[in-house]
Formats: sequence, C-alpha cells, structure tokens
Amino acid sequence: MLLKLPQRAEEILNSMISEKIKGASYLAEKCVEFYIALIEENISNKEIVRLSNEIVRLFPTVAPIYNVSDHVMKLVREIDDKDVILKRLKDYLTEIQSAKSKTAEIFIKNIEIPSEVVFMTHSYSSAVLELFKKLSSMDISFEVILTESRPDFEGIHLANELEDLGIKYEIITDAQMGLMIKRADVVVVGADCITRRLDVINKAGTFLLALSANYYSVPFYVLAERFKFHPIINHGEELELMERELTVQGKAVRNILFDVTPSRLVTAILTERDIVKPL
Amino acid sequence: MLLKLPQRAEEILNSMISEKIKGASYLAEKCVEFYIALIEENISNKEIVRLSNEIVRLFPTVAPIYNVSDHVMKLVREIDDKDVILKRLKDYLTEIQSAKSKTAEIFIKNIEIPSEVVFMTHSYSSAVLELFKKLSSMDISFEVILTESRPDFEGIHLANELEDLGIKYEIITDAQMGLMIKRADVVVVGADCITRRLDVINKAGTFLLALSANYYSVPFYVLAERFKFHPIINHGEELELMERELTVQGKAVRNILFDVTPSRLVTAILTERDIVKPL
Repeated sequence: MLLKLPQRAEEILNSMISEKIKGASYLAEKCVEFYIALIEENISNKEIVRLSNEIVRLFPTVAPIYNVSDHVMKLVREIDDKDVILKRLKDYLTEIQSAKSKTAEIFIKNIEIPSEVVFMTHSYSSAVLELFKKLSSMDISFEVILTESRPDFEGIHLANELEDLGIKYEIITDAQMGLMIKRADVVVVGADCITRRLDVINKAGTFLLALSANYYSVPFYVLAERFKFHPIINHGEELELMERELTVQGKAVRNILFDVTPSRLVTAILTERDIVKPL
Repeated sequence: MLLKLPQRAEEILNSMISEKIKGASYLAEKCVEFYIALIEENISNKEIVRLSNEIVRLFPTVAPIYNVSDHVMKLVREIDDKDVILKRLKDYLTEIQSAKSKTAEIFIKNIEIPSEVVFMTHSYSSAVLELFKKLSSMDISFEVILTESRPDFEGIHLANELEDLGIKYEIITDAQMGLMIKRADVVVVGADCITRRLDVINKAGTFLLALSANYYSVPFYVLAERFKFHPIINHGEELELMERELTVQGKAVRNILFDVTPSRLVTAILTERDIVKPL
C-alpha cells in the first residue's frame, strides 16, 4: 500500500501499526521519529507529503498523527536546509516527550486532591501513568481502580507499571465499571483525540466510564496534551473509528478500538498548558 | 459446610454452584429438583429447613432460590403427606419451566415491535432466548447485538444458540456497549433478582447497558418471571453481590458477578403475568 520506505522508517511504521498497548502520546513520538528517518534518508518532499497522507489515513482517530504530520509538512515546505529541519524535529520530539509530565503537573497544581483518594481509570495512558508517578512521590495516599481493558489488556500492562512503582491498585473486568465507580473519588483517563467540540476519543469503554461517573457525580478528567486536539474534526460522529479483527472461542467478535465521550460528560480536559472546561 | 446430602441432591447442588452460564431461571428449576430429591430421600423437615437456610445464603442475589425455598418451607410445614408434597413440587417445577415462555408471550403481545428490528442484550438469559425463539418463527426480521460477557463468555454461549436457530447476531466486547447501543432499537435483558423497589440485579455490565440505552433513549426491557421478585429486599444496596476468583495474565482481577440497575433506568419489567412499570 505504501511506497518502498527506508528500512528504519518502515520499522518505525510497523511498530506503530502493531502497537496495541501504548497510547496516542507514544504514537506521536514514533510519528516524529518516522519523519526524521525519512528526512535523514533524503526522501523527497513530494514523497513525504504523499506518505503523510497515507499515515494519517492509517490512524484516523489518532489526532497526534494528524498534528505531527501537519507540523512536518509546514517545516519541509518552509525550510530548505535539511539540518535545520532535523534540528527542529528533534526539538519537537523533546517537546512532545515532556508534554505529558507538564500535563500531570497542571493536574496536580489545579485539581484539589484529598490526602486519601481512590482514582479510577480505563485502558493505558502514559499521561495518566505520569500523574500517578508524580503523586506517588508526594504525601498523598492513593490507590487506583483500573479495568483489564479487553481485548488487549492494557490494564494488566498498567498494573505491572503501578506494581513497580509500589502503587496500590485493583483490577476489574470492564463490565464492573458501573459497580466500582461508587468507590472512586475521581476518574482520570487519557485520549487519542479531542475534537473541536471537545468530544473525547479514547479506548472503547471510556464512554461507559464517563456515563457511570456522571451517574454517581464523580469528576471525570481527561489528560490530553495539546497535540491531541484535532484542528478539523468537530465532533466524534465525523470519525471513522478503527477496528481490528478478534476471535473468541471460534466466533468473530467486533473490536472497534475507540469510542466517543461527549463533551458534556467531561468535567475538564487538562493539557500541558491549560485546563479546557467544556461548557 | 453442608450436612451430608443424599447423592442426587448433592449432585444437583454442585451443578448449581458450578453453573456459570445459565441464568436464574435455570437455578430456580434446579432448586426445586434439589428439594424434590431431599423429600424423596426422606430427609426430615427440620433438616430441610436447615438446608434451605444454607442454600439461600449460598446464592444471596438469586431471588428464585429464596422464593423456591420459601415455597417449599410452606409446603412441608402445611402438608403431611409426602406424595402430595412431591406432586405439588412437580407442578411447581412445570409452572417455573413454562413461565419464561409466557413472559416472552407477554412481551410480544404488549410491546410494539417494528417489522425490522435490532435487539441488544447482555449475558445469557433463558427468558430472552425464549423471546428470540418465538420471534424467529414470526414474520419479523431481526438481529441481535450481544456482548461476549467477560469473564465467563455467556454471550458466546448465546451466540451458539442463536446460530442454531438461524438468527442473525453480532458479538461485541463488553466495552463496546456504549458504541453499539446507537444501532439498537430495543434492549432486552434477564434478571437474577428484582427488588421491591424494582431495581434489577443482573450480570455485571447490565447497569452500563442501561446507562447507555438511557443516554440514547433506547427502551430498556427486563424479562423476569414473578419468582425473580424478591419479597424482602427493598433495593440493590441491601444485597451482598456474589464474587468469584479470577486471574488474568497472573494478576488477580475482581470478579463481582452482578450489578444493580436502578429502577428509573428501566422502561418496563415483563413477567409471565403482567407488565411492571417503574414510576
């Protein structure tokens, strides 16, 4: 489907396509690395533009891919010097890498957290993990209720990381979200894409957690670096949600990866720069 | 924990305890058979009363166990003749067995069903399956969206039955309930227990489906034979919900079997006799 890529670029792209656990922040980093590999291998601007269209189409719900590609397109159009472009891209990568930490700081600085608190989350978000890391070094006693996150079990992956950090956690099946929300003080999730109307595209099941939180008046926060905000898509209905094949006990099971949490169910979206409060 | 039981009664009890797929209607039948076995083996009334307390405690959320036990206690207290008791119990068993079919009939007679309709359900309910069976012999074109129902995969079991009946179906992961509800015209689920305030105790995840249906204004019907109505428990919060052990990729995962769907999220409860409409 894609033209012949330089080997390193192809390896990066394949790792992006096969990635099932790590979220959109990870894909954003990989995407910058992909373009760096293309430019280092002297791929022509015309080919880079063509490839960028392909890669954006491969990840329709992942706003960072759109934003990174858009950013790179502007750089290659405006700057002639390959070394300058590469320098700018490496700075951009550093910016992306540090954004989740800043987002966690914005949360800690602005959201009142009791000294004993039960968090709840769904799937795996590196920004959310960053928040838990920071909190674990503070004088806060907290535990995390997390979902196993079928079918790829991102929750088990998160649990392993929490265990390494010595953070108390409890894993539940996805179906128990509505039960366990009663024990939670606050929900934090990541996002793959924030639409212009502030709908949140995230791992399927996030909407169910938002509904549950809403029903029991538990605040529902989304950690989303600015590069996850889609500049064009207005609301979730405009998106074609990615799907992967899944077979359970010999039967085909639908496996749409993402769902849409309408803005009105979101208490606030936190970025590395600000807090976006839906109306 | 229990006293030594006659072999057949013990077999029946073990099959009830180990049953993971079939719902509360099945347990109701098995429970009557359990008491029939006790009486046939000349177990004393005193021992039967003791056993009934034990078995009710084993299945705290399953109203039919409470109701069947209560019914049997009255029979053994009021009637001296073993053969009369057995005759009455066998009639009672027939009544229980036919109730789900009558419940399906009440649904078909009273709920307006378009000639093309998409149903959605969660877990496995023999009353719901009975409804689909009846509809498949009528001039109605329908399909069923069903959840895989982690961790015991009752949905895969239901899918096998639908396949045998030639009914079109689509299986989704539990986490996609909030996505797929948009395609559904009507939700039908079973119940393990209906409280006095008409809260619905059913497989964990039912509450999430009810929240989703409510959000998108999809009617949410519960099929529950009268013996599923608990005469004492007022609302779901009074119940201790059963839990089983579960390990996923070496990690302990909470596995509470049931959740509570508050009455106000229920459009109507259909029984073999009537339609109960929450206020």
